[in-house]
Amino acid sequence: MKKVLGMGEIMIQMNPTEKGSLVYQNLFERHVAGSEANTIIQMQKLDIDTNFITAVGSKEFGEVILSALRAEGVGVKDIKIDEEHPTGLYVVQRSYPFPEKTSVIYYRKGAAASFFSEDDLKEDSFKDIDMFLVSGITPALSDISRKAALKAIKIAKKNGVKVVFDTNIRINLLKTSEKAYDCLLPFIEEADILFTGKGDLNLLFGKSFEENFEEIKKIGKRKEMYILKLGGKGAMVIQDDRVYRSAPFKVPVIDELGAGDSFDGTFLAALLKGKSIEESLKYASAAGAITVSLKGDIEPLPHWKDLELFLELYESGEGKLLR
Amino acid sequence: MKKVLGMGEIMIQMNPTEKGSLVYQNLFERHVAGSEANTIIQMQKLDIDTNFITAVGSKEFGEVILSALRAEGVGVKDIKIDEEHPTGLYVVQRSYPFPEKTSVIYYRKGAAASFFSEDDLKEDSFKDIDMFLVSGITPALSDISRKAALKAIKIAKKNGVKVVFDTNIRINLLKTSEKAYDCLLPFIEEADILFTGKGDLNLLFGKSFEENFEEIKKIGKRKEMYILKLGGKGAMVIQDDRVYRSAPFKVPVIDELGAGDSFDGTFLAALLKGKSIEESLKYASAAGAITVSLKGDIEPLPHWKDLELFLELYESGEGKLLR
Amino acid sequence: MKKVLGMGEIMIQMNPTEKGSLVYQNLFERHVAGSEANTIIQMQKLDIDTNFITAVGSKEFGEVILSALRAEGVGVKDIKIDEEHPTGLYVVQRSYPFPEKTSVIYYRKGAAASFFSEDDLKEDSFKDIDMFLVSGITPALSDISRKAALKAIKIAKKNGVKVVFDTNIRINLLKTSEKAYDCLLPFIEEADILFTGKGDLNLLFGKSFEENFEEIKKIGKRKEMYILKLGGKGAMVIQDDRVYRSAPFKVPVIDELGAGDSFDGTFLAALLKGKSIEESLKYASAAGAITVSLKGDIEPLPHWKDLELFLELYESGEGKLLR
Amino acid sequence: MKKVLGMGEIMIQMNPTEKGSLVYQNLFERHVAGSEANTIIQMQKLDIDTNFITAVGSKEFGEVILSALRAEGVGVKDIKIDEEHPTGLYVVQRSYPFPEKTSVIYYRKGAAASFFSEDDLKEDSFKDIDMFLVSGITPALSDISRKAALKAIKIAKKNGVKVVFDTNIRINLLKTSEKAYDCLLPFIEEADILFTGKGDLNLLFGKSFEENFEEIKKIGKRKEMYILKLGGKGAMVIQDDRVYRSAPFKVPVIDELGAGDSFDGTFLAALLKGKSIEESLKYASAAGAITVSLKGDIEPLPHWKDLELFLELYESGEGKLLR
Amino acid sequence: MKKVLGMGEIMIQMNPTEKGSLVYQNLFERHVAGSEANTIIQMQKLDIDTNFITAVGSKEFGEVILSALRAEGVGVKDIKIDEEHPTGLYVVQRSYPFPEKTSVIYYRKGAAASFFSEDDLKEDSFKDIDMFLVSGITPALSDISRKAALKAIKIAKKNGVKVVFDTNIRINLLKTSEKAYDCLLPFIEEADILFTGKGDLNLLFGKSFEENFEEIKKIGKRKEMYILKLGGKGAMVIQDDRVYRSAPFKVPVIDELGAGDSFDGTFLAALLKGKSIEESLKYASAAGAITVSLKGDIEPLPHWKDLELFLELYESGEGKLLR
Amino acid sequence: MKKVLGMGEIMIQMNPTEKGSLVYQNLFERHVAGSEANTIIQMQKLDIDTNFITAVGSKEFGEVILSALRAEGVGVKDIKIDEEHPTGLYVVQRSYPFPEKTSVIYYRKGAAASFFSEDDLKEDSFKDIDMFLVSGITPALSDISRKAALKAIKIAKKNGVKVVFDTNIRINLLKTSEKAYDCLLPFIEEADILFTGKGDLNLLFGKSFEENFEEIKKIGKRKEMYILKLGGKGAMVIQDDRVYRSAPFKVPVIDELGAGDSFDGTFLAALLKGKSIEESLKYASAAGAITVSLKGDIEPLPHWKDLELFLELYESGEGKLLR
Repeated sequence: MKKVLGMGEIMIQMNPTEKGSLVYQNLFERHVAGSEANTIIQMQKLDIDTNFITAVGSKEFGEVILSALRAEGVGVKDIKIDEEHPTGLYVVQRSYPFPEKTSVIYYRKGAAASFFSEDDLKEDSFKDIDMFLVSGITPALSDISRKAALKAIKIAKKNGVKVVFDTNIRINLLKTSEKAYDCLLPFIEEADILFTGKGDLNLLFGKSFEENFEEIKKIGKRKEMYILKLGGKGAMVIQDDRVYRSAPFKVPVIDELGAGDSFDGTFLAALLKGKSIEESLKYASAAGAITVSLKGDIEPLPHWKDLELFLELYESGEGKLLR
Repeated sequence: MKKVLGMGEIMIQMNPTEKGSLVYQNLFERHVAGSEANTIIQMQKLDIDTNFITAVGSKEFGEVILSALRAEGVGVKDIKIDEEHPTGLYVVQRSYPFPEKTSVIYYRKGAAASFFSEDDLKEDSFKDIDMFLVSGITPALSDISRKAALKAIKIAKKNGVKVVFDTNIRINLLKTSEKAYDCLLPFIEEADILFTGKGDLNLLFGKSFEENFEEIKKIGKRKEMYILKLGGKGAMVIQDDRVYRSAPFKVPVIDELGAGDSFDGTFLAALLKGKSIEESLKYASAAGAITVSLKGDIEPLPHWKDLELFLELYESGEGKLLR
Repeated sequence: MKKVLGMGEIMIQMNPTEKGSLVYQNLFERHVAGSEANTIIQMQKLDIDTNFITAVGSKEFGEVILSALRAEGVGVKDIKIDEEHPTGLYVVQRSYPFPEKTSVIYYRKGAAASFFSEDDLKEDSFKDIDMFLVSGITPALSDISRKAALKAIKIAKKNGVKVVFDTNIRINLLKTSEKAYDCLLPFIEEADILFTGKGDLNLLFGKSFEENFEEIKKIGKRKEMYILKLGGKGAMVIQDDRVYRSAPFKVPVIDELGAGDSFDGTFLAALLKGKSIEESLKYASAAGAITVSLKGDIEPLPHWKDLELFLELYESGEGKLLR
Repeated sequence: MKKVLGMGEIMIQMNPTEKGSLVYQNLFERHVAGSEANTIIQMQKLDIDTNFITAVGSKEFGEVILSALRAEGVGVKDIKIDEEHPTGLYVVQRSYPFPEKTSVIYYRKGAAASFFSEDDLKEDSFKDIDMFLVSGITPALSDISRKAALKAIKIAKKNGVKVVFDTNIRINLLKTSEKAYDCLLPFIEEADILFTGKGDLNLLFGKSFEENFEEIKKIGKRKEMYILKLGGKGAMVIQDDRVYRSAPFKVPVIDELGAGDSFDGTFLAALLKGKSIEESLKYASAAGAITVSLKGDIEPLPHWKDLELFLELYESGEGKLLR
Repeated sequence: MKKVLGMGEIMIQMNPTEKGSLVYQNLFERHVAGSEANTIIQMQKLDIDTNFITAVGSKEFGEVILSALRAEGVGVKDIKIDEEHPTGLYVVQRSYPFPEKTSVIYYRKGAAASFFSEDDLKEDSFKDIDMFLVSGITPALSDISRKAALKAIKIAKKNGVKVVFDTNIRINLLKTSEKAYDCLLPFIEEADILFTGKGDLNLLFGKSFEENFEEIKKIGKRKEMYILKLGGKGAMVIQDDRVYRSAPFKVPVIDELGAGDSFDGTFLAALLKGKSIEESLKYASAAGAITVSLKGDIEPLPHWKDLELFLELYESGEGKLLR
Repeated sequence: MKKVLGMGEIMIQMNPTEKGSLVYQNLFERHVAGSEANTIIQMQKLDIDTNFITAVGSKEFGEVILSALRAEGVGVKDIKIDEEHPTGLYVVQRSYPFPEKTSVIYYRKGAAASFFSEDDLKEDSFKDIDMFLVSGITPALSDISRKAALKAIKIAKKNGVKVVFDTNIRINLLKTSEKAYDCLLPFIEEADILFTGKGDLNLLFGKSFEENFEEIKKIGKRKEMYILKLGGKGAMVIQDDRVYRSAPFKVPVIDELGAGDSFDGTFLAALLKGKSIEESLKYASAAGAITVSLKGDIEPLPHWKDLELFLELYESGEGKLLR
């Protein structure tokens, strides 16, 4: 069975029960989220065997994160429990001042995951692993994190593990184009499979879409595949010189958070399960659509049967009540 | 004053406060629902005098159901309290994995209503009654229920009570077309007023819509009227050789559960109040529209003044704030 | 710094957590609202210095209202605490029986604000004030209120304070066109800036829109500016013989309550901050759009930065997630 | 079967979900309560056939009250729907500033029940009735209410219906001892069964407990029985010259509201069911104890089986978990 | 590392957010619970390696149970997913009609766990296992369950696994003393470690406490240890002829459910970790006290650090706030 | 009118709706709290004119804190809005693993308040001020904070403002006795009025209670008054050589957070209002008792009328329901 290892920060998410300015929010739901972890959980839900490496605080919120991963079946044996630093936390504001706008207040600076260092990596974590996944958030967290992510990729390569990287730029962490470029370059170079998006490319290279894409292709070596996420315009995959496109599924957007992660995880899981690129794109788009139609990052992530049912109902044009 | 008697199972409904997969739902609202009871409550809200027969458990959930019926003004004097079997219960999953999709987990097997037998029927319940209503769910519950429903129809006929039947097929209870046909045939034969829908006809006869309708007409005897519910395409009534049609009112769909029952109850109540078939269809469509625009089965059921206001606002094109 | 004084009733609002008929609502959120107060709070949020005059009950609900105003930075030093009469309260029903319909049950009769009389007015409250604002609700509350509002305008004029009046007719309080006309006439006469709407004009004069507008212009003297709110069709300002128009911003409507107040407050604040009429109209329309897109009267009222962000996102056509 | 008729105001109760000052309460549960109605519902729960007369508003809150009574099985056929006046409402503050202290803000002035007049009484309501019940709240509501209550007693007497009166003084409505005395005197004179308490007696006569009791005995004529509620000290019944006492059951006090009503209703129901005075007192005390141990007025009211179980568990000294 | 295997039904628990009669409960929290699973989770929390065998339904509620076990770290690889039968569910009523009384409505008849049969057992599940645990609930579920439990014990013995049995009688499932005796006898005979309580012994043998204990000792063979739980009076352990006693820790009782399971799991885990019987009893009593002081079955189960802190604070007599 | 200035960090508090381990908490209420701010708000509620200095983040949570202070009437004009650092936040765990135990997870490191420096102090803030208040938390936050607090005291002294200091040691911030001593010494030296407690004295000096008190007396100069808080044993005031004692009021403890702050604020306000030390102690103890009897830090803080009512009800021994 295929096995995937992910790396990244997982945080406590405080999400108000109501939409609107945080100034007036009195009640919050506690969720768990983290871009790479969302992707890994999506893969686990699609029957891929997964493990995760990160650091969490030793107080109850660290346990919350371990429980959430274990509940989904993700392996946690190599996660570091940090006695000194807290588990990262962020607070979400939804639909203010614009209906579809989400913004966040972060309490991630100085959190445990930023102190997960090269020395915390164990070569054993990479044994019998087929794929290693990390995103542009991790190197942006701290210098320690960046070095750890670089070393992780080195170990992966050494052990013959395929490297997946999603540029996933957080402007909040990487203030300028220059910093983003410098920080992410080595990862873009090394990735075997690279996910990125129009906005990220623009931030990195600042040219036209086509030129940006030429730029990134120049950087990468031994790149197996590029996946470009185009938001409301679907997605495209470039492999060698073939281009595959998919249109998005149209559903009412409730909460965009996590949709890209769900897309990534489903695309990779489908590939690992032997689906074609076309099929994988279709499943990935369906997963993204399901995820935007509901609140939460992890909660909407679909199983295979959910993906099949979504496609069937979408195509039949009926949200038929089955009783 | 016109008086109507209904028969069928009423269940405790556990409805999560949030949309999405039941795997992640922590909080549930308790409601009460049952197809025939919804219809009867709709009629009571429209000033028809009603009674209901069924069985409920003797523990608190039985009392919940009696209270709910009494609160609406429905007579409960002939409802059996079963010391041995629990009150049926079901759990709803909303909007997963598709925005408009609702699915349910039933705990109705072995429940009190399935043990309401021929012997529990009292001839007195049918005295001074103008109309008796039952649907295809009741005979599908258990063999005991089926026999009880058949006998109820016999008593009704004997007492000159008009019989209304809605095919209302639950594939969950009647696994195949054959079973559905065998189970429902005698009810279709005996009904004076028959409600059915495109999907039910297709399941029963498996031919084109027109042919299906010819089939069902062959079966029925002394049929006063057929009402065909066509979902998003409105409804039609066939009486003798006249056909009446109504287009649906367009409102955002929040929860489809109970809309058909509300349609049935309003149509029948309007007829009993002396409205024409055209008017009755219009009111029934309005009631269905109101019901789909809100959560819950019983809670959205409108009074006459609500129906009038809905029609007025719908026609004026304004949801005017009146203060 | 410009300073504005408002006057009017502020009430406790009980708003059910769920949509639908009040008959089935079990849980209510407590909010605070009042048309003139909403407008004043909107202005305070846009960095105008404000004060408010009214009366509230001496029990906890009076304190709730004082706290809400103070929280927003509105001056409360001249608000009367009434030991005898309670604080007004109202209960909202949302989306029943029509999706966009809101209705209310009032407990405002005999409330403290209706007993705020001429004698409760202090000339000092009008010192160093640039603008005084009241709406058609206040004179409609009670004879005492009407006299108090008239005297307030007199004091304002005497002190060189500009008078703003919004006709804001509540048919619930002013049962007929005649009563409305008689009650509001002196206010329309005296206002320097007059806000009104198509519906109010129609109620007052009952002619065509153009004729109605001619009628109101005849009444007013020394009128600086008319602002006509046209609901889904935007708004227009008439100054001298120039006409300025703005189209509405299109957002999903969640709760219309408070949108007109937000519009008024933003328009006035923008003017006071030296913006042109065109700009002021644009900001006012944006504020109204933000307000209808969320529940609550006060909670959605935007700051300048929120207005700017709304306009930017609206124009870019993207509810971009910024992280 | 014995039949009882009750009369009094029933109100919408808004009860915050949290304890503490109302200034900080954001969320309220909607309940229904009214002293006489609580008593009548308690009797209905104990299998006495009951009816109620009052007036409610014609908007949704009136329907809420009718539904609540019907749900419990209380007859509502003679309740007046008042198009002009709203349904009374009150808001509760719990445990502030003292752990066991409850206080209320009333919106009952000008409510429908205060306008239920002599002319609204129907002689038919008193046919086939064994007992008529009203309390000191009703005559204190308004002059109209007082006259209606007096006439109700007259009709009751004329029809051979036994009259029950609970002095139930609300100092909020009857500001002084003198007013209370004048208002309640004719009711104390006419009652066949009189409930009162130490505090009420003290307010009425202002002497020692024994002297107060002598005073009240002088007033009453044809008095069948006096029941004195002594709060934490239990209760006593005086019939002719016999005195019966009961000690209270000790349970943690959660919410005192409604405990006296539950006591009254259980005592009367037990008597009507043929229990002895001693037994009736014991059941009544148990009902009071159950009621104080839970929130709400109506919700804790016990059935016979609940009373039996309470007594069994109280005596066994074990809150045994039965599974 | 020591490894323990548990077997038994795990159910969905619907627990109302408020105390009081279920008739008035509108909102329910969803939990997961099952006596043997509680015990196993308690052991896993105390760093014992655990696995569990049972059957769950294939719909979302089955996944809820798997997630809950995985979240706690319990191995689920041998749990059967049953396509035909639903996952058991029960509804709790708290504090009615007596403050400490809990009662339940079960929907467990015909549930998946009752159909987990001998044939579903895999010998592999018992490899490398030190201890096998089952309680008197499992054989009482159905004849199929009883046979499966017997066979499980046989396999355990054959593989040299120590057998732990808690009599845990549910009178709801085993209606009479005779049935309980017949059903549980073979388990009492075979258990190496036997947990039981005063009530269970009384039900089984109906004599004095001492005589009952003599009876049970006669039955058992090769019994390593008896643990008697005495409710409010603590617990005692009898090993060979030595008797160990522990007094209970006194804390306010919020919810008794799960306290016995927590006691069992902690006692066993402490023993397996090499603690003395005296120490194990003390930790077990502390775990029981923590569990009764909070709602929920699984949520209060303590880790070692929680047990240590509880003991420290209990002994210091101060619930000191540490900040 | 007397005027008081306070200084310290104010944080967003996330408080779970349920008791128990944070691992299982899904829903949190958002509150605002900070020791010195609690004290200042308590004084404002008792009609003392107050201002506060601190720094908050520029995002919505900063506005939440400003709103909360303004709502209570506390002056906020000199509070710094920090664009760079977030507003501090903490999460509370209640009643786990011991019934009365509260613990917290802090996200205050690197928060805005820790960067409020000497340079942010304005001499104007201390004009026309009678009393300046700070506690041991502020110097413990960061070196910047400590220097700012020292300078604030210097400015206060220079302007003839009386200095109040509460040792209020947070072991979480000041890891050892040595660090606590070094950090707090200059504040203890300079304070005119010093609040401290048994635990703090012990941590600072580690001797017997009497010796500890002698130690602290040696340090202070120009000390006007010492107030010693003894938890469950009440409080004592030492002025010159007179000792005043007060016993605590006994009420059920719901949440200890904020009780000491309420005590401090009430004692100081009473003194400033001209009450005797004995009276001030009694009011302060009552305020502390009210605060522990309810959740929240700010919400339970009493007004004078609440204090009077508490004392009256406490003395009468009755939680009388007044209606």
